Amino acid sequence: MQEPRRARLIDVARRAGVGKTTASDALSGGGRVSPATREAVLAAAADLGYSVNTAARHLRGGAIGTIGIVLPEVVSRSSYYMAFTFGIVTSAAAHDIDVTIVSPSVSSGRSRPIRADGLIIGDPLSGDAALPALMSSGIPIVTQEHLPDDIAGTPDGVLWSSHETAMLRLFDEIDVTGARHPALLVAPDATDWSRQLVSGYRQGCAARDLDPVIAPISFEAPWHEVREATEKLLQTHPGTDVIICGPDSSAIEVVAVLGRMGRTVGDDITVVSCVDHPSLPFLTPSITSIDLRPRDSGVACAELLIDLLDGRVASGTDVEFPIDVVARESTAQPLRVRR
Amino acid sequence: MQEPRRARLIDVARRAGVGKTTASDALSGGGRVSPATREAVLAAAADLGYSVNTAARHLRGGAIGTIGIVLPEVVSRSSYYMAFTFGIVTSAAAHDIDVTIVSPSVSSGRSRPIRADGLIIGDPLSGDAALPALMSSGIPIVTQEHLPDDIAGTPDGVLWSSHETAMLRLFDEIDVTGARHPALLVAPDATDWSRQLVSGYRQGCAARDLDPVIAPISFEAPWHEVREATEKLLQTHPGTDVIICGPDSSAIEVVAVLGRMGRTVGDDITVVSCVDHPSLPFLTPSITSIDLRPRDSGVACAELLIDLLDGRVASGTDVEFPIDVVARESTAQPLRVRR
Repeated sequence: MQEPRRARLIDVARRAGVGKTTASDALSGGGRVSPATREAVLAAAADLGYSVNTAARHLRGGAIGTIGIVLPEVVSRSSYYMAFTFGIVTSAAAHDIDVTIVSPSVSSGRSRPIRADGLIIGDPLSGDAALPALMSSGIPIVTQEHLPDDIAGTPDGVLWSSHETAMLRLFDEIDVTGARHPALLVAPDATDWSRQLVSGYRQGCAARDLDPVIAPISFEAPWHEVREATEKLLQTHPGTDVIICGPDSSAIEVVAVLGRMGRTVGDDITVVSCVDHPSLPFLTPSITSIDLRPRDSGVACAELLIDLLDGRVASGTDVEFPIDVVARESTAQPLRVRR
Repeated sequence: MQEPRRARLIDVARRAGVGKTTASDALSGGGRVSPATREAVLAAAADLGYSVNTAARHLRGGAIGTIGIVLPEVVSRSSYYMAFTFGIVTSAAAHDIDVTIVSPSVSSGRSRPIRADGLIIGDPLSGDAALPALMSSGIPIVTQEHLPDDIAGTPDGVLWSSHETAMLRLFDEIDVTGARHPALLVAPDATDWSRQLVSGYRQGCAARDLDPVIAPISFEAPWHEVREATEKLLQTHPGTDVIICGPDSSAIEVVAVLGRMGRTVGDDITVVSCVDHPSLPFLTPSITSIDLRPRDSGVACAELLIDLLDGRVASGTDVEFPIDVVARESTAQPLRVRR
């Protein structure tokens, strides 16, 4: 049964003139909200008859009161997935719902059923042996990014971003540096995200008549792999003048490798990142990157899943989640041309 | 029933010559582990007959297969709690156990039972209305840090660190700068952590015959509160020459405030932090801080809880978790004395 007149979080957010993340923070007691904003959100919730406890009542009629998160294995040091997860937690808290992080061992032969009313799958990985079983489990599923082509099934909801477009925006910033030899450090076919990055990269190169150079690396490469891939890239393509770093936090290691080689970022070579990281604004120079807004993305995934579970949106809903490039010092001025 | 001869994660780690976190990573497929290390861990596990699936079998006889995490409200942007949480997730994965993040609304009137075999409470907060009910829920509980005095009950396990000693170590680094007017930005009575910081700070001041100045601030203060507290501190105590930042990530904002006031960190004033943050090594100057090793701490909490649930350690176990100071540029040389 639909209850179309019951207020949703988005209604509260709109009435208070804030975003859904801020509304979630205010309702769940989040601390990054000013007292005035919190008051406005609580007033809007009161006006609309919205309360944390009633919001999830429908969902929880006989249900578990938990949504599950399935993340790619190997992400436990990723600041991106941490922020994404805590965005989901904040949003779920605003609905009085718990969040279960499903053990990564799900993919290595878990027999126990998953106890969750719905699942959010972050970045479904190509070839992930766990995904087919999850897709056919009957549990409502929201994926962040589309399923890779090799995984059968249709999620009930998809939250996706245009990383292709973001990559082209990154090229606009790279143009400021005059760089003509870009190389992309990426796991080319790992996920729809990386597939889009490669596609955008090839388009950006083609539009500028540049030779694409793709340095393959794991989806979440450990430091030593980033180091080795960077060293190898600079041996095989010594003229590289901008390294576009795919994996989360790899830009930090690439900058460190360049430093150890006696190169200065912003001199005759520069670095940009496809995933922003809390450190990148503080590196010298600060690093231009794509801000994937992971916390807001977690909130949006949770809201989409809860709306699906509550029957307020239809299965098969696709939602585009906006992302953008943050231009910083690493692309602020022309590079010195190497002699 | 105890099964003393069954191999534990720590046995595998010792045989492979690595730490428990690395062993967890290797067993759960974590990606920051080199192939050689992973092989060594898997070999040690095979030698000892340890497997992820059998490790948790005892615990899971009729149990839920989930451990819960209760965090202070208001922490969803804290890099500390994110790393702590993902440490727990990694460790749980090595035992084929899920992790449920219990909604912060637990403290604002949750009626639903908590479905978890055991709970980890991170930094129990003084006055937290949810804690008494949790402490008497009958669910086995490990707290990270001791309960504040105003909360009744005894956790089954406590993982604690000596923040008092770490603060005294921080003073040793501050001594290098010659600073004589330290101020501590902290929520004095929020948790056992902050209580220890204040105690260590007073001892450090007393040993050097310095006047203690405590600038009170919320446990996890939003940016604007950090800014206001810093500005107020410098108005009321303009001679302050080192700001010791308590709340996670507050040092970043304190450095920014000083910059906007035209002050240079490392000139006639400096900054240190009681919680390390991924950005602090990259600030100019880099910021000396206490490394609380949150990810390892999460692993240690999970291992303690699982050992308790499996009956391998007795209820009432206290474990000290080592932490240390990371000396960086902000305390590397003497400050210029203000005229």
